Parts: sequence; structure tokens; C-alpha cells
Amino acid sequence: MIRANRHYEKLKASYLFSDIAKRVAAYQEENPDKEVIRLGIGDVTRALPNACIEGFHKGVDEMADDATFRGYGPEQGYDFLREKIAKFDFHSRGADIDADEIFVSDGAKCDCGNFQELFAQDIKIAIPDPVYPVYLDTNVMAGRTGIFEDGRYQGIVYLESTRENNFLPELPKEPVDLIYLCFPNNPTGTTITKAGLKEWVDYARDNKALILFDAAYEAFIRDEDLPHSIYEIEGAEQVAVEFRSYSKTAGFTGTRCAYTVVPKACMVYDDAGEKVSLHALWNRRHCTKFNGVSYPVQKAVEAVYSQEGQIQVKALVSYYLKNAELIRMAMEELGFTFVGGDNSPYIWVDGQGRDSWEFFDLLLSKAGVVCTPGAGFGRCGQGYIRISAFNSRENVEKAMVRIAEALK
Amino acid sequence: MIRANRHYEKLKASYLFSDIAKRVAAYQEENPDKEVIRLGIGDVTRALPNACIEGFHKGVDEMADDATFRGYGPEQGYDFLREKIAKFDFHSRGADIDADEIFVSDGAKCDCGNFQELFAQDIKIAIPDPVYPVYLDTNVMAGRTGIFEDGRYQGIVYLESTRENNFLPELPKEPVDLIYLCFPNNPTGTTITKAGLKEWVDYARDNKALILFDAAYEAFIRDEDLPHSIYEIEGAEQVAVEFRSYSKTAGFTGTRCAYTVVPKACMVYDDAGEKVSLHALWNRRHCTKFNGVSYPVQKAVEAVYSQEGQIQVKALVSYYLKNAELIRMAMEELGFTFVGGDNSPYIWVDGQGRDSWEFFDLLLSKAGVVCTPGAGFGRCGQGYIRISAFNSRENVEKAMVRIAEALK
Repeated sequence: MIRANRHYEKLKASYLFSDIAKRVAAYQEENPDKEVIRLGIGDVTRALPNACIEGFHKGVDEMADDATFRGYGPEQGYDFLREKIAKFDFHSRGADIDADEIFVSDGAKCDCGNFQELFAQDIKIAIPDPVYPVYLDTNVMAGRTGIFEDGRYQGIVYLESTRENNFLPELPKEPVDLIYLCFPNNPTGTTITKAGLKEWVDYARDNKALILFDAAYEAFIRDEDLPHSIYEIEGAEQVAVEFRSYSKTAGFTGTRCAYTVVPKACMVYDDAGEKVSLHALWNRRHCTKFNGVSYPVQKAVEAVYSQEGQIQVKALVSYYLKNAELIRMAMEELGFTFVGGDNSPYIWVDGQGRDSWEFFDLLLSKAGVVCTPGAGFGRCGQGYIRISAFNSRENVEKAMVRIAEALK
Repeated sequence: MIRANRHYEKLKASYLFSDIAKRVAAYQEENPDKEVIRLGIGDVTRALPNACIEGFHKGVDEMADDATFRGYGPEQGYDFLREKIAKFDFHSRGADIDADEIFVSDGAKCDCGNFQELFAQDIKIAIPDPVYPVYLDTNVMAGRTGIFEDGRYQGIVYLESTRENNFLPELPKEPVDLIYLCFPNNPTGTTITKAGLKEWVDYARDNKALILFDAAYEAFIRDEDLPHSIYEIEGAEQVAVEFRSYSKTAGFTGTRCAYTVVPKACMVYDDAGEKVSLHALWNRRHCTKFNGVSYPVQKAVEAVYSQEGQIQVKALVSYYLKNAELIRMAMEELGFTFVGGDNSPYIWVDGQGRDSWEFFDLLLSKAGVVCTPGAGFGRCGQGYIRISAFNSRENVEKAMVRIAEALK
């Protein structure tokens, strides 16, 4: 008898974003004339940069001719791309990452979700709260947690981000083996300083732990002193993997490309305590279960690193950051306290005693604006909402006017 | 201390295709003037069909304009594509598969590799020998096997394909829960009749087993009576999942698109023996760990189903089948026995007492032709080589002349 993976049963029955979609659909049915403005899901809305479009078309043209056609490419990505990534995203910031430590993929969600496969079943895992649900759900599916009770999975060490700690979790009080971190943070929009990040790297080095560092939003950092990569911290290459994405950087949510950095110096341990190369493990996984990213997509990404592409990508990110600024100003004017939105596309707004879903429903019903209820990201998100800056300027301005009127 | 997944240690140290690459590189270094013809790895060489190129460019153009730009798409694929797949690939052959039973992905390798995550750890698995290594390796990584000994992983039920059974494995003698099948077969090129496939479906129904049916090469079937899909067999929708790919059908090895069919009628069981929807499980996995296929790629694939696209794709497959026919004729003339190559791009040649690698080395050193040693696909592949029809006509003709001269 073919039996199911019983750990799937532990997953919470509903997805956050499908719950939201249902409420929005119900609202639209009742109010067919009202235009809804979506500042909920973190999806970009603006066209791909011109340079990427050109690179993309060129890649497609090469596929049209036997002489330039490309079949299976390297699973890890083409060297032309990996070399540019190493140079522009790491060497330029003093991080010593080589091209062959970069694994190009079709998404940071896939990589974040798949990476846990490389580890033993009974490791101790620390995950932030609130958090991007993929870190948690993929470990639940893999059987690394107990049941879901009182809003939390048993067996996980939750790293709490609260107003008391300024939304920067403290080091775990009990020993952990695997730590998920995300800066600039999704959902709170907070950032971490080099000194703050160094504490985590030191912790990992002292405890033979590993950090999975999600830097999907690094392009939004404008503060010169903040680290874009964990490898700007000395010794991080021994204890950290970094996930990057073109989704928010260059508008690739529907085009699909990301990469993961696994330094060759990064070691994990076998049951006897002997060192095992994490790079070799991920390479084996990547080659066995993945067949590389579409060639024309890699050509489109390559163009991100052209002179033209760099300017266009910066302009794209700045556009959304300007939206974020408008949201911050509007929230400030309304007397809300919040974090994020300066080096991040997300603004994390304190509901001043309101329940997350109550706040969500209020903005939807009174202003026709969709946000994300913080409680959907974990117990510590209760009482907050996340407002996303990913929309047109016009819509963001309209949404802020509507919210102001609704809450007056 | 962060400990590694200890099951990775059980994997055979080397990959088949990297071993081959090393031998080819060594040969080329010693013989820098000799041109090597590759009939080894199953990678296509001809340009994408024109219709796909046009669809691809159109998709890219839509990404260039805010008004038509696409962000995150449905994880399962766009309806415009899923509906065409259902109609052209299934309804046209009398198979009752709905659009929402189709999950579009970036590769059959990924899907074949990931699907095992849905099952309990201690199920009994039947895997053909010889076989595409991904089925086996992904189950090894997941800890469902013992160690590798005498050329086989402990705990797996091997379904032997030998000259004695005409390369069509018999039903397992002991009860199994999960069965991997691939027709037209990789590596042997053999096909299965409806009656033959019905035996497997009946076995699965009688034993509450599940069949993972890899139909990546169905486009190569020219014999009218052979099934292209397992869903042409009555009742299969209750016990079978089917993997399809555009890699060989439409030349997408470097463009990346495939799909998996999970019928809603297909049930697995929980530990108490209660039915669990496999469709719901895969949907949860797909949504949690995957973010959909690149929009322009889906537009390129959509064009496969246009009138123009259907003609071009058939022509592309026919081109490779003509190569296969030339290889068959050459092998026949040389007095070899073989199977495959009529409804498949692969020809499985009996080495007449030669060891697989010896035969491989002979063809490389004497003819400058790269094939794949059968032993790399499993113990039953020993003594055989696989010749692939994926190359230009000119190269295939040249290779056959060279082999004939080398073996005279």
C-alpha cells in the first residue's frame, strides 16, 4: 500500500495568501464597482529593464539557429553569468566569492525550500517569527517538527522579532544547528548592521552551526553602511549560505532566476564529527534534481550586469523605494508606528491594539486596499500588517489617500 | 553541530556522464586533431521550432511593457497552456485528463526527482534495471535504500530488463508500493503495448500501489497501436502519475519546460489506511517549493500546440527518428543485435560479449564516437551500449561509417 508522507498532515490547512485571496474575492463580489488596490503580496508590477529584454531576445534568437542553439547547459549556470555575479555582487563589496561557488537556479523559493534536504533529520533549527513561511513549511514536510499547537510547530526554536527588541531577534538561548536569517527582512523590512550580523556569524562559528542567509531584498539597501551580503563579515564563508534573487531586484518574479552561494570553505559534519563539504553536497543535489535555468533567461540576467542594466535596475528599485517612502509618510501622518520601508520594500505597521486580520479587514472594507495581516507570518506578527511598495506610483498614492480617509 | 544528511554518502562516488566526459577529454588531449562525434548523452542539437521561437519572442515583448508585464504566475502553470495540454496530449487520445490535473514545471528531471517526497519513508520501491539514474539516486538521498553493494542498492526491488524477457520487466514477485516505469524506455528504447501496460495498471490497482510513469519520449512513437500515455489504459487515473517533457519533443533541453499529470482520482493512503488525495499533496509541494515556469517559456510551449507548431515538432522528431533508422541499419549490417530506435531515439546494442566500458573505449579510440556504456544504467546494462540519435544527420552518417571501418 502506497503511504503518504505523514508530515504533510501537520501543515496548517490553509495558506496565508489563499485566505487573503478569498476575502478579497468576497469583498469584490459585494462591491463590484470598487477598485481594489493590492499592496499585499510582494510581487513586482513594472516591466523588465530594457537591457534584460534585449538580452532575452538575443538568447531566444540563438535558440532559433542550429549553429548557436543550446541544449542542456551546466546545471550550476553558465560561466558567463556566474563570473559576472562573483564580480559585481561580491568582489565589488570585498567579499571573496568565486564563480564556482555560485549556483544559478530558477528561484530563491526553490533553493530556500530545497536546501534543508542536505541535513540530518534531527538537527535543531532556529527560525525567525514573523517569517517567510517557506523556511518553516519545508522543514515541516521533511519531518523536522512536531505538530502545530498554539500557533507554533513543536521542536522549532523561534527567533522572535518584537517591538521590544526592535525587530532584531537575539541569539538563541539553547544550542541550534541551523539558523534561517533574512535581511532586509521579509516581512518586517528591518535591516541588520555589520556588527549585528557579525554576532550571528560568531555564534555559528562557535557552535558549529550553519546560517542560511536570505538576501532577496539586498538591492533595496540605500544606507551605505549596511551589509548587502553576509560574506562582508569575516569568517562567514565558513558558516553561511546566501540566497539571492532577481525577482525583486530586476522584476523577475514571472521570469524566474535566482542564485545560491555555497562557499567551498563551508563545512558541515558527518555523524562521526568529520567535516563534509557543503558545496559538494549541494552540487550533487543540484545536478541530480535540477537541469539548469533556461538559456535565454540567463542571457536576460547577464544584462543586469551591463552598464545600461545596472542603471536601469537601480532606477527600478528606486521607483519602489519612492513608493515605500510615500507609504511611510502616510503612516506617520496617521500616527502609526512602523519599521521598514527605508532599505526595504516592506513597511511593518503596528495596528495599535488591533488584531492583524481586523486591521486587514478594515483597510479592505473601508479603503479597498489589500495588505498582508502580520499574524500570517507567525505569532509575533499578530497586531501588525505588512504593506508592500510593489505597485504603480499612482496606485500607491491613491491607496494612501483612501486609507487616510478611512481612518480619519 | 550541523550534521549532513548521511544518506548522501551512500551514493556512488561518480556520475556516469562525468566519467564519460573525463574519458572523452583524455582522448581529445591525446588526439587533438580527431573530431569526436557525440552520440552519448540524450541532448538535442537542432534549433527550436519556428512557432516556439515566435511565441517566445512575443512572451518577452509582453514583459517589456507595464501593461502586459507578468509577475508571479500560477505555480501550476498558466491555464492557456494547461488547457491545450489536456486537449492535445490527452483528450485527443481518449484519455480523460483535466487541465487542473496538469502541473507545468521546469523539467521532468526535477519532477521525477521531487515526487518521492510525497511518500512515507519505509515504502517498498520497484525500479527498472537498466534505468535513468535519477529515480534511484533521489530515493537514495531520501534514505529509502541501504548501502550500494555488488552494483545495487539494498532495499530496492529491481525490475530487470534483459534479452531473456525482451527488455520488458515482469511484474514484481514481492509486493511493492511504488513503481517507476519509463516507455519508450531510456536507455533501452523499448516500448510497451496497451496490453502490457494494462498488466502494470492492474497490478497497481490490486496492490494499492502507485506507478510513476515517465513518458518523456512518447513523441517518438510512430506505431499507431502503442500507448502514448498511461491514461489510455482504463483505471490508470486511479494509480498512476505521468511525467512529460518538451526536452526531446520540441528541443527544450536548454529552454526548460515539462509537466506532470496527477489525476484527482489518484489516491494514496495515510498510516491508518485512509485515502489521501495525491493531487492535493503534490499541489501543496508544488506551491511551497516552486514558483512556476518563466512566462515567456510557457508562451513558447503554447506554440507547440498551434497548427504550425504541431507540424514543426513532428518534423523535428522525425529528423531524429531518421537518424535512429540509420544507426539501426548500420548496426544490423555489422551483425549486432539491438533493440529500440524505431519508436525511440535510443538504440540499445548488445556488445556480443564485450564489457560495456570496453565497447565504449573501442568506439571512442577507434572511431572517435561517444556512446553511453550500458553498465552505467545498472547491472543489467552490462554488456550493452546506448547509442543516441540526437545529432545532425551528417554526424550520424559519419559516425556510422567510422564505426563500420573500426570494427571491420
